[in-house]
Order: sequence, then structure tokens, then C-alpha cells
Amino acid sequence: MDDLQAPDATPMIEYSEASPEVRAVYDDIMRTRQTDWINNFWKALAHDPATLKRTWESIKQIMAPGALDVLTKELVYLAVSVSNQCPYCIASHSAAAKKAGMTPEMFGELMAVVGMSNETNRLASGYRVEIDDRLKA
Amino acid sequence: MDDLQAPDATPMIEYSEASPEVRAVYDDIMRTRQTDWINNFWKALAHDPATLKRTWESIKQIMAPGALDVLTKELVYLAVSVSNQCPYCIASHSAAAKKAGMTPEMFGELMAVVGMSNETNRLASGYRVEIDDRLKA
Amino acid sequence: MDDLQAPDATPMIEYSEASPEVRAVYDDIMRTRQTDWINNFWKALAHDPATLKRTWESIKQIMAPGALDVLTKELVYLAVSVSNQCPYCIASHSAAAKKAGMTPEMFGELMAVVGMSNETNRLASGYRVEIDDRLKA
Amino acid sequence: MDDLQAPDATPMIEYSEASPEVRAVYDDIMRTRQTDWINNFWKALAHDPATLKRTWESIKQIMAPGALDVLTKELVYLAVSVSNQCPYCIASHSAAAKKAGMTPEMFGELMAVVGMSNETNRLASGYRVEIDDRLKA
Amino acid sequence: MDDLQAPDATPMIEYSEASPEVRAVYDDIMRTRQTDWINNFWKALAHDPATLKRTWESIKQIMAPGALDVLTKELVYLAVSVSNQCPYCIASHSAAAKKAGMTPEMFGELMAVVGMSNETNRLASGYRVEIDDRLKA
Amino acid sequence: MDDLQAPDATPMIEYSEASPEVRAVYDDIMRTRQTDWINNFWKALAHDPATLKRTWESIKQIMAPGALDVLTKELVYLAVSVSNQCPYCIASHSAAAKKAGMTPEMFGELMAVVGMSNETNRLASGYRVEIDDRLKA
Repeated sequence: MDDLQAPDATPMIEYSEASPEVRAVYDDIMRTRQTDWINNFWKALAHDPATLKRTWESIKQIMAPGALDVLTKELVYLAVSVSNQCPYCIASHSAAAKKAGMTPEMFGELMAVVGMSNETNRLASGYRVEIDDRLKA
Repeated sequence: MDDLQAPDATPMIEYSEASPEVRAVYDDIMRTRQTDWINNFWKALAHDPATLKRTWESIKQIMAPGALDVLTKELVYLAVSVSNQCPYCIASHSAAAKKAGMTPEMFGELMAVVGMSNETNRLASGYRVEIDDRLKA
Repeated sequence: MDDLQAPDATPMIEYSEASPEVRAVYDDIMRTRQTDWINNFWKALAHDPATLKRTWESIKQIMAPGALDVLTKELVYLAVSVSNQCPYCIASHSAAAKKAGMTPEMFGELMAVVGMSNETNRLASGYRVEIDDRLKA
Repeated sequence: MDDLQAPDATPMIEYSEASPEVRAVYDDIMRTRQTDWINNFWKALAHDPATLKRTWESIKQIMAPGALDVLTKELVYLAVSVSNQCPYCIASHSAAAKKAGMTPEMFGELMAVVGMSNETNRLASGYRVEIDDRLKA
Repeated sequence: MDDLQAPDATPMIEYSEASPEVRAVYDDIMRTRQTDWINNFWKALAHDPATLKRTWESIKQIMAPGALDVLTKELVYLAVSVSNQCPYCIASHSAAAKKAGMTPEMFGELMAVVGMSNETNRLASGYRVEIDDRLKA
Repeated sequence: MDDLQAPDATPMIEYSEASPEVRAVYDDIMRTRQTDWINNFWKALAHDPATLKRTWESIKQIMAPGALDVLTKELVYLAVSVSNQCPYCIASHSAAAKKAGMTPEMFGELMAVVGMSNETNRLASGYRVEIDDRLKA
């Protein structure tokens, strides 16, 4: 007897089977990104239409060009995803950053900064460095 | 009887009491950054001159302008430090990013990206989203 | 010469000095929570009205009772904040969970689960445990 | 010459080959969970019988119904595992939570809370929000 | 009206006011560590006697000399606490490691390893390095 | 039209196709480690020769025997990698630790300490334990 039933791995909800509410988000993603496909992240979130809609609208607002340009935002998104070691996010945001103009040289320098900041974050904690008065004022 | 002796909180090694080896690093920091003071991070690392020298030389190399400019690198450094929740690093790299040209509007947008990427990293993991073939190829 | 200028610590934007856009959010927070004060988190976010509004509206939607009741949601919020070791969030969500009905006994059991899950997460990784076929199907 | 010998991937210790000490733990797991199988986590830990026994007895105590019911505890366990991005733990605790009564709607709301708390944890840190006096008292 | 009531900051439970169950743990801590005081971690956990007892007995078992000596175990404990950036744990385990024989030179080398491993962990993730066949076999 | 082009998975740069600069690092790695192969981490980093060289030279310096012996350093490196849940790093540093003398018993005890420290780090944060005066002095 199998008492510990596995939840289904999250199946993707394809456009053809999506509700009108979900399709409206898919359409907006494709229109905004000027693309003709939807990556799996959204097809998984579609199981919870409220989260799909809220997450997409938040990202659409946050990632639009503003005081920071799109490439810079994608570099930061990738940096955080690498620092958090999220395989899906690294794959998808590497692609997005490359599309936004990230060159191999930029990627190399980005990784160097991500690596070094993770190192010095721990050195600062381990040495219990007090915040300088000049940095507080 | 105090059997659990507390390690001293890391005292800062000031320029006046530093060894020639440590002073050489302090001098290079001030020269490179065109400043006349050393922040506490380096004065704490000075207890281990090998780490002080290696860390400074690595940062000097990594943070120099290259394919990414200095402001972009400082924004990424700050983003990682915020994501890791390191108070000292947030204080020092907020100051460094501001010095490199970060405006309040840029800071606001940076925080929005850091927050959102931390959110979607967990959504991708929790929904166990499979990496799209298009993202693998 | 002080070349590394410290960014101001984020000053709080009080109701009396807030823009109409920010006040509208503050009003909705107080109305929704049936309270007469605004905690510092919102007063700091108010420096970026777009983030203030988006974050509040997301939280308002997410934390409303649904398939999970408010107490359960607050317990989860606190569990994540403790796991991430965020002092502000632990303070504010301990208060929110208590308001939603968390007793000292519940808090003790919650911490036990948070501690144990953090332990076994590392044991699973360190032993490189393969996912059981039954858990994949 | 292969000087960097790979450690064996942790092989599972099956019931039939287990020592009496390990079998006693396996028996208690199956009896407590009213199931007839042991998932890989325990079969890997069995290489260190002291850790197997201690971990099982701790989990048995912690996850028993108390001030919090079993479902709530499983939801928290899953939330922490998702926040930590541990694939094995997400798979096993998704199954356990579902067995304890988690519906797809509950899962969706749980993920929303986990995502949002990870976001606001970083906003609180990045904005360096001071803890309110009301939250300290 | 203060509707968001702050939970009390966890008050310490002193020996003189502790229950017999809690006192028995305090006594065992002092006897095992050959000391005459109890640090705040235990006095806070004492609010949940089951967690106090389980945690202490687990630590007592885990930190006893075995295949690894006490100093090595304390160095690892400190390394993890620094990597996780937990201020209380860094303070208490720095003291414990020093008591177990950690010299300033050892501390410096330990921090160097903690920093570097945090750096290369991210480089490995960001570059999406495939595990070598030799490391799998 | 495929507008979201996937970045190539990082291809390995083999010795035969490497530049003289990269070969010099590969040669030094093999000489220092007294081995005849290079693991994938270095072959991926070779896309950024400056990072390859800097990272190798840092690791060579940090992991050399000093106040801490090589085995202790490898145990700490593995502990941090497990705590951070980095699959590549766990595989490679398990192998390195084993080569340096880690027995199965040592591995079991190491994992126990890593698990327990991750647990108590969260208990200390969740209970908001104040640092003892004795630990500050």
C-alpha cells in the first residue's frame, strides 16, 4: 500500500488548454516580450491564476526600463539567482540577460563580482566588523 | 570561574600601529580609491595580513572598470549583499554605490529587482519547474 | 576629504509629510488591518511609491484568508523569516502571528519545525540522497 | 593514475541488509507512519546509525500533533525546504504535506507566502528598516 | 489602540526560577562543560522544555569527541554559523572554539576557507558546471 | 522565431585547445595536486582567464597546510558547501576530503555538526537570543 502519495510533478498548462484568465496573461507576456512562446515558469504558475497574474504584473512593472536600463536589471536578476543557486532561474535569466545584451565578457565579470561579494559578506560577519561611524551618519 | 572565555571582538588595526606589510595595503587602498581613510573591514582583516592582501588585490582587480562599468559592479555587489542580508556589507556598499553614481531612484529599482528575484527563485523551486529545452540547448 | 559619503539611513516618511499617493496606501493598510499606526517597513518603502503600492497590494491579496487561514499564513511567514534570519521581519511577523492567535506553545513548536527542517535539508544535500521513484511519479 | 578518488554516491541501506539497530529505527518509522516503505533519506542516514536514530526520534517528537496540527507542521516544513531550495526535501515534504491534507489550493497559497516573505525579507534588509519601538517593547 | 501587540522579547529563564525539568538540563550542561554558567541560548530555549532537552542532548552527543576531535567540530560549527551570518552563533561558537584551542592563526585560516568556499560555490552554480564523471562514479 | 536565445551551457575548455595562459594554470593545478587531470570547475572558469588565475592562486594559498592541516580545511570546505547546498561543490569537495583522509566515520560526524549548526542558528534567531555579556567582553 502506497500511503505516501507523491504529488504530481507540476505539469505545464499549455495555451491550448488554458482558461481565458490564464490566456490573457500568456498573451500579455508574449506581447510585452515580443516573443511567441511562454517558458515553463509561467506554465507552472498557471495552476494558481492569482499568483500567475500578480507575479507577471509585478515583473512587468519592475523590469521595465527606468532609472536602470533593462540590461542592468537582468544582470542583477541573474546575480541574485546565482547567489541563491536556483538552477531554473540561472538558466532562464542567463538567457534573458544575453538577449538584453550581456556579452561573455560581461558574464565573466558579473560572476567575479557575485563570487567576491559572497566571500566578503562572510569575512565581514566572521570578523564581526563594526559599522564605521562614517557609514552610519 | 569563567571557563568560556570570549574572544576579543575584533579590534581594528590602525595605520599608526600597522606593520609595513599592512601599511602597504592600506596605502594602495587609499591611492586606488583616492581617499584618505580606511574602512573597518580592512582594519579587521589586517589581523591576517595574507587575507588582507589577497582580498584587496582580488577586489581591486574585480571592481576595476571593464566590460561592466564601476556603477554596475557596485549595484551588483550591493544586490548580493542585500540578498545575503549582511548589515556591514549593505552599509559599506550602499555608500560605495552612491559614490559611484547610484541615485535614490536607482536604489529603489535595484531593491525591487532584488526582492522580486528572491521571490521567483522560490516559486521556481517550490513548483519544481523543469528547465525548458529552449533554455538548455 | 570624505569621498565615501554614507547614504542616509532610510528615514521614515510619516503620514503628515506623505504624498497623496503614499497616504492612500497608508490609509488602506490601516483600514485593512483595523489599526491606527503604520510600521516602519512601509514608511521606508514609501521612498519608492511604486514599490510601496505593489508590495502592499501583493501582501493584502496573499495574506487574506483563503484555503489557508490567516494564522497559518502568519506562521509560515514567520518560519521563512526566521529561516532567513531577518531581524526586522522576525520582530514584525512575531507580532503579527501573535495578533492572529499564535500562542507560546505554537511558537515553540513552530521553531522546532523550522530548526529541524533546516537540519534535514543539509543532511539530504550532504548525503546526496537520490529522490525516490515513488516521490517522482 | 586517478588520485582524486570519488567517494561513492551514498548507497541506500535496504532493510534486508540492515543491522538490528538500523532495523529497529526502520520498524518504528513504518509503524509510526503506518506505511510499508522507507524513503531514501533514512536509507542514506543509516550509514551513521547514531544520526539515523537521533534524527528520527527528533522528527517523531517534533512532527507529532500538539499545539499545531500535523498539516500545519508539514506546511511549515515544506515552506522552509522551498525557501532553502532543497530538491529532495521539496519532493518528500510535498508528498508528506499532501498526505496530511494539503490541497492544490493550499499549495498555491503556501507558495505565494513563501515567495512574498523571501521578497520582503530583502526589502527590509536593503532599506535597513529600524525595528519599531512598538515591536521591541 | 495598539492592535499589533509585540511579543515579549524572549526573557531568559534563570536557574532560580526554572522548573525541575529545566534545572536538570542546566545541571547537565554545566557538568558536561565543566562550567558554572549557562549562556542565553539555553535560557531562551527553556520556554519550551521539550526543545531545550532535545537540543541539548543532540548537541551533547554530536559534539563529543569521536572520529573528529572537539576542536575540529567547533571549527566546523563556527564555519557554518559564519556562512549563515548568525550573530549570536558566531559570538558563542567563537568563544567555544577558542576554549577548545583555536588560535588567532587558525581563526584567520578558517575565515579564509569559509570566504573562498562561499565564493566558489557561486562560481560553480553560475557557470553551471557539470559534475565530472570521475566525481560521480 | 526564437527570441529568447539560450546561452550555451558552459562548454569545457580542454588542455589541447587552451591558450598558453590557461595552460599555465592547468599545469600548476596538476603539479600542485600531483594529479594528471583537471576537473570541470577549472575548465569552465577558463572562459575567463583572469578569474581562473585569481581563483586558483587564492585557493592554492588558502588550502595549503598552515595553522590548520589540509584535512581540516577540506572538512570545512565541504561543510560550507553542504550548508549552501551546492551539488557540484559537494561532489568535488567530498572527493577532495576523502583524498585528504576523511573516513566514513568522519563524514558522518561532519554531517551531524553541519545539520545541528543549521538548526541552532535558526533557533537562536527565532528566539531572538541576546548575546551574553560574557561573550561580548
